Amino acid sequence: MIVNCVAYQDGRKLADIQVAEISEYLKRPECFVWVAIKDPTDAELETMRGEFDLHPLAVEDARHGHQRPKVEEYGDSLFTVLHIVELKAEEAVVAEVDVFTGPNYVLSVRRGTEHGFAGVRERTEREPEMLRHGSGFVLYAIMDNVVDRYFPVVDALEVELERLEERIFSGGSPKAIIEELYDLKHKLMVVRHAVDPLIEATHRLYGGRVPQVCVGTQEYFRDVHDHLVGVSQGLDSLRDTVGTAMSVNLSMITLAENEVTKRLASYAALVAVPTMIAGIYGMNFKYMPELEIPWMYPAVMAVMAALDLYIYLKLRRAGWL
Amino acid sequence: MIVNCVAYQDGRKLADIQVAEISEYLKRPECFVWVAIKDPTDAELETMRGEFDLHPLAVEDARHGHQRPKVEEYGDSLFTVLHIVELKAEEAVVAEVDVFTGPNYVLSVRRGTEHGFAGVRERTEREPEMLRHGSGFVLYAIMDNVVDRYFPVVDALEVELERLEERIFSGGSPKAIIEELYDLKHKLMVVRHAVDPLIEATHRLYGGRVPQVCVGTQEYFRDVHDHLVGVSQGLDSLRDTVGTAMSVNLSMITLAENEVTKRLASYAALVAVPTMIAGIYGMNFKYMPELEIPWMYPAVMAVMAALDLYIYLKLRRAGWL
Amino acid sequence: MIVNCVAYQDGRKLADIQVAEISEYLKRPECFVWVAIKDPTDAELETMRGEFDLHPLAVEDARHGHQRPKVEEYGDSLFTVLHIVELKAEEAVVAEVDVFTGPNYVLSVRRGTEHGFAGVRERTEREPEMLRHGSGFVLYAIMDNVVDRYFPVVDALEVELERLEERIFSGGSPKAIIEELYDLKHKLMVVRHAVDPLIEATHRLYGGRVPQVCVGTQEYFRDVHDHLVGVSQGLDSLRDTVGTAMSVNLSMITLAENEVTKRLASYAALVAVPTMIAGIYGMNFKYMPELEIPWMYPAVMAVMAALDLYIYLKLRRAGWL
Amino acid sequence: MIVNCVAYQDGRKLADIQVAEISEYLKRPECFVWVAIKDPTDAELETMRGEFDLHPLAVEDARHGHQRPKVEEYGDSLFTVLHIVELKAEEAVVAEVDVFTGPNYVLSVRRGTEHGFAGVRERTEREPEMLRHGSGFVLYAIMDNVVDRYFPVVDALEVELERLEERIFSGGSPKAIIEELYDLKHKLMVVRHAVDPLIEATHRLYGGRVPQVCVGTQEYFRDVHDHLVGVSQGLDSLRDTVGTAMSVNLSMITLAENEVTKRLASYAALVAVPTMIAGIYGMNFKYMPELEIPWMYPAVMAVMAALDLYIYLKLRRAGWL
Amino acid sequence: MIVNCVAYQDGRKLADIQVAEISEYLKRPECFVWVAIKDPTDAELETMRGEFDLHPLAVEDARHGHQRPKVEEYGDSLFTVLHIVELKAEEAVVAEVDVFTGPNYVLSVRRGTEHGFAGVRERTEREPEMLRHGSGFVLYAIMDNVVDRYFPVVDALEVELERLEERIFSGGSPKAIIEELYDLKHKLMVVRHAVDPLIEATHRLYGGRVPQVCVGTQEYFRDVHDHLVGVSQGLDSLRDTVGTAMSVNLSMITLAENEVTKRLASYAALVAVPTMIAGIYGMNFKYMPELEIPWMYPAVMAVMAALDLYIYLKLRRAGWL
Repeated sequence: MIVNCVAYQDGRKLADIQVAEISEYLKRPECFVWVAIKDPTDAELETMRGEFDLHPLAVEDARHGHQRPKVEEYGDSLFTVLHIVELKAEEAVVAEVDVFTGPNYVLSVRRGTEHGFAGVRERTEREPEMLRHGSGFVLYAIMDNVVDRYFPVVDALEVELERLEERIFSGGSPKAIIEELYDLKHKLMVVRHAVDPLIEATHRLYGGRVPQVCVGTQEYFRDVHDHLVGVSQGLDSLRDTVGTAMSVNLSMITLAENEVTKRLASYAALVAVPTMIAGIYGMNFKYMPELEIPWMYPAVMAVMAALDLYIYLKLRRAGWL
Repeated sequence: MIVNCVAYQDGRKLADIQVAEISEYLKRPECFVWVAIKDPTDAELETMRGEFDLHPLAVEDARHGHQRPKVEEYGDSLFTVLHIVELKAEEAVVAEVDVFTGPNYVLSVRRGTEHGFAGVRERTEREPEMLRHGSGFVLYAIMDNVVDRYFPVVDALEVELERLEERIFSGGSPKAIIEELYDLKHKLMVVRHAVDPLIEATHRLYGGRVPQVCVGTQEYFRDVHDHLVGVSQGLDSLRDTVGTAMSVNLSMITLAENEVTKRLASYAALVAVPTMIAGIYGMNFKYMPELEIPWMYPAVMAVMAALDLYIYLKLRRAGWL
Repeated sequence: MIVNCVAYQDGRKLADIQVAEISEYLKRPECFVWVAIKDPTDAELETMRGEFDLHPLAVEDARHGHQRPKVEEYGDSLFTVLHIVELKAEEAVVAEVDVFTGPNYVLSVRRGTEHGFAGVRERTEREPEMLRHGSGFVLYAIMDNVVDRYFPVVDALEVELERLEERIFSGGSPKAIIEELYDLKHKLMVVRHAVDPLIEATHRLYGGRVPQVCVGTQEYFRDVHDHLVGVSQGLDSLRDTVGTAMSVNLSMITLAENEVTKRLASYAALVAVPTMIAGIYGMNFKYMPELEIPWMYPAVMAVMAALDLYIYLKLRRAGWL
Repeated sequence: MIVNCVAYQDGRKLADIQVAEISEYLKRPECFVWVAIKDPTDAELETMRGEFDLHPLAVEDARHGHQRPKVEEYGDSLFTVLHIVELKAEEAVVAEVDVFTGPNYVLSVRRGTEHGFAGVRERTEREPEMLRHGSGFVLYAIMDNVVDRYFPVVDALEVELERLEERIFSGGSPKAIIEELYDLKHKLMVVRHAVDPLIEATHRLYGGRVPQVCVGTQEYFRDVHDHLVGVSQGLDSLRDTVGTAMSVNLSMITLAENEVTKRLASYAALVAVPTMIAGIYGMNFKYMPELEIPWMYPAVMAVMAALDLYIYLKLRRAGWL
Repeated sequence: MIVNCVAYQDGRKLADIQVAEISEYLKRPECFVWVAIKDPTDAELETMRGEFDLHPLAVEDARHGHQRPKVEEYGDSLFTVLHIVELKAEEAVVAEVDVFTGPNYVLSVRRGTEHGFAGVRERTEREPEMLRHGSGFVLYAIMDNVVDRYFPVVDALEVELERLEERIFSGGSPKAIIEELYDLKHKLMVVRHAVDPLIEATHRLYGGRVPQVCVGTQEYFRDVHDHLVGVSQGLDSLRDTVGTAMSVNLSMITLAENEVTKRLASYAALVAVPTMIAGIYGMNFKYMPELEIPWMYPAVMAVMAALDLYIYLKLRRAGWL
């Protein structure tokens, strides 16, 4: 579905144009065409390939989707694959944005997400002096927008981890904690797969030999790269901490077992000692003088209670009960 | 066994030719020979060495098989070793494909797999404009085919892991789970050994100085490289997750032990308390007034039952039972 | 808030100047302006941007704060982000210092910390021959000061770890130890995030192509780099040791469980044996000759005591009690 | 001890020569001398130093032995240290081969192994066209032979690991398994120390600037390098798998503990329930009507037996017994 | 404290000279001055700075001590920091040696160790042809001496580890073992911090662009580098093995717990069964015909003993006792 198809000149919007006119406008050197499509059909992609004269391998990638994030040069144009990560109902969902960037055009192909780049277009149109930088700046604006969406995701995962940490140390159900840590780790991996390949790719847009369309906007791509490195570092910390939290949780489980064993031993002691004494006075010897003494029965009962109280206090002090 | 032996000219099939004619056709500069053999005898390899004038070390490698995946330059020709991984009956089986690529020939030697490259040949023959790129494009087509076969293998292993995860969290037999995780890890390693060495090798086919036969098809090899990196990333995630699953499983085992100990303690308590009381009234003191009271026996029995009920409810609420 | 705004000439303080005069002084080639601001408002930053003609992206970063430590070149000026780490009430708190360094100016923007760079300014003003090196030397002096503040933090964390180690081996509460090790690891990560990005960044200030403002002071930046590497190595060791301490703690917990189980078994044995014997003499057989013997009761009691003493001594020697 | 001392010309053996003649033969440019010595005395090494004009540091290394595997250039000659690993009586034993390679000589010094390079010499002498490549080819032949000896060692360690895996999963003694895994890991380390340093060293014999004596035989050294990488990869897998096996073994131990605890609990239950019932009927209440009923005793016994059968069956079904 | 202050000419000792004469001798181009000082005062260092014209930053580092090992170029001179590690009373103690190397001088500053470099000086003076290489060779001789002192330290740690391994597998106190492994790991880290930074630093003394004072002695520094790599590899193995030993120890602890639980269960069974039987014959039923039979008491006792013997033998065979 075509979302937008606009021609710009000298940093300002010229007109909404028809798809069939694109190749016309591209021939005007002072002109710049920016098209956004969404969940395209094969026919739409084929039309675009014709109008923009895109490389077949890149179009193939855009058709199939499920590419790794990357930036590839085809002659004087760039093919960029970006992943958008959204947290929906405890799941990390990945959407894909493919951007074809030529000397005087940008074509963005979005799949599987409702959140488009209308805001990017609006903001860019308000700054003609920026838009005059051409397609490189638009590519930057789109990447910047995608990268900015990673931050709230990482923040949400950090909050989730902090809640889990609290539960670990305050004695939450270890089984549920393990399962949620495991899920969290999985989500981290999904975000990492979106972020990490882009780091190296964006680096090539400002350092060393820079693709033609990015010349003049290197400092902007360095900024994107920098944000990506920040996100990646945040993910590294999270991942490391999740690993530690898992092993801490195992320690907590083992500790809990210690507690249980201690309680088991304690209660056993409290019951076993009176049982033993009662057993002794249950023996059938003829000559057991105590048995004849009237106050002996309450005395023995008192001894039992006293012993249990003593054991109880000792165990309590030892922290077993 | 010779599977195919075909000469091409100008992107189109010329004829099925005899092995002995190969060197003849190779002398015609506009001609291109593509031979596929399968589980070759030493004699067949020797014939090929003569016809194509192959390097002895490369032929040696093809004869012995069991090489690591690699791409080696011998003068103006390339020797490529590829591994095909197939999952058969819970086992990861490795087959080998060796490809000799010269300026105007491709010789593929397949071992240990039924699945050949007939499809690759058909599709390539349908695209004469591609075949005109020469041997480099054929090498690409074969590599692309081999790499495409890794994806379903990785998918199958992912499904296997997901099933194991479910069993871990739903309380499946930990012993069987350990053993299957261990097997899964082994299979991952087999696939990794097929994929990883190729990543670096394919990189050299499009970046930096490119071998002569690959000139003009670099973008295709970059695509192969990209897919390999994707597969490798998938394997990395799997491997990482298997490791985590193993440690989660250990936590689950320790948790299960906690459960058992708690139950042991609970049942012991339920039995020990009545035993203790019974022991007390089994003592032989002369003066135990309760013993004379007619309703005392049922009363004591009721106390025992009440105590057990109380203990049972408390343990139940504590989650020990 | 403007903390200082001073013009220097020939290595000596010329005058405290007004913000509005800055651009005037910057035009004099022999002049050098050093401004320090603290928790700036957007308006102050905007003024500074105008006076110093700063790059919008750098000013943007300084406005938002929460940047990763970095050194970025914008034309012939440098934008540096430094993190100051302070330990406050068991927490590692991060403050940020942004430094804009041009050919003849230094602007430092400090956020979230009371500890400024007055000392740096004083010391630098006492060494006119150094200050004559210009803005590069001032940048070095500020960085050196920031890096020097990492050492006491690392030392404090080392002391904390040593105390935890003592508690681990002397049998402190494993639960508290786990929690504190976990906290310590978190603090280490905070310091690491301040230090590690700077290592690579400072390297570019003395090795290879050096930014213009640092020419002539490379040996000083190498010194800063060296200190950072030292801090980083200290953090690596700490992190590694914390990991080991965690696993040692788990071993200690498992060992403690062994102890508990042994004690449980020991006490059970001490009580169970007399109970068994008492049970035997509590049987109601008609013909049990021992029951008639007067000294049998004390004898059996003595046997019980002797057996328990024997068991006790054996268990004691085995280290179970 | 001198094992061989032979002069070659034009790829063919000229004569067995005397040690004192070596320097004579070396002066003839078309001549090539290949000497093999074994467990040399200091005097022998000194003689060799004189005849071949070897570098003192290299001779020093050869005298002391216990060097790391390496390839070092001294002017136009190479000094190579290789490790041979042999499995003897469950131990990994390391022998050392030092090879001095000059433009027209090869001197191999072997220590601590019975297995020499007679086979290498024979095979090389049968291929005069290869021997014509000169000392580089002989160095290759020796290295190839040493590297070929690693494969059976790795295979033997793989078999050992497979046997251990079987024992782990079929319930072998965990203590013996730990100890053997530990030993296996140690042996892996010994082989790794022989292999890994050579990988980087051999790389320098075919890639980039190649030492003079290796020019013309780069493809052969690439082959050696390739085999070493294969061995190293095999060792990596083994090492990784041993680590996993160790942690699996720990899981198995924990699982075994679960089993023991379950059995302990089960048997305790089977004994405790009848004991409790017997205790109840051992109470001395005057009014216990059951005690008067003649069939009550067998009835109670039957109840005890029935309860135990019920408990037994339930535990059996739960897998505790 | 000045230990030595000697001028050399043409490879031979000229004279012991006064500190104040140093700058005089340095002016003679054919002359070479070698000074050794120990635990210097600030005044001594200041004198040296003046005489040798040392760089202030390097002198600053030497004054403070506690630098990381490093090699730094200041113009045409080198500043080298080396760490000496000594094992004293179960502790790894670090001493520091700072070496200033100029075109015609060497100044070594030693701190915190009794073991100086008198031996190095003697040996070097005996080899005038070596000393003629100048200050580079002296620096090599000192570094070589320092590196040679690492080997016995690594050996001692290896012996310590082997003893711990024996204790692990022969059932030594796991608590003491953990603590000693932890200590050992700490010592390894101390040695590693001395060795690792030097590896990279020495590499720059023979590979790529070499500092002027090292030209002509590169092969010697390569030798030092090689030894350092060997030490580092040994430390890596040790560290890896200590980690494994720790986890093996945890397995042993868990295994020991299994043993304890089995014994607990066994002894419980041996006591519980007779107790149950005694309980049964302690019941007060009127009609229990066995009670009247004279030989029944000894018979029941025999049955108890027989049952216990049977249980004992079964448990013994199962390895529980």
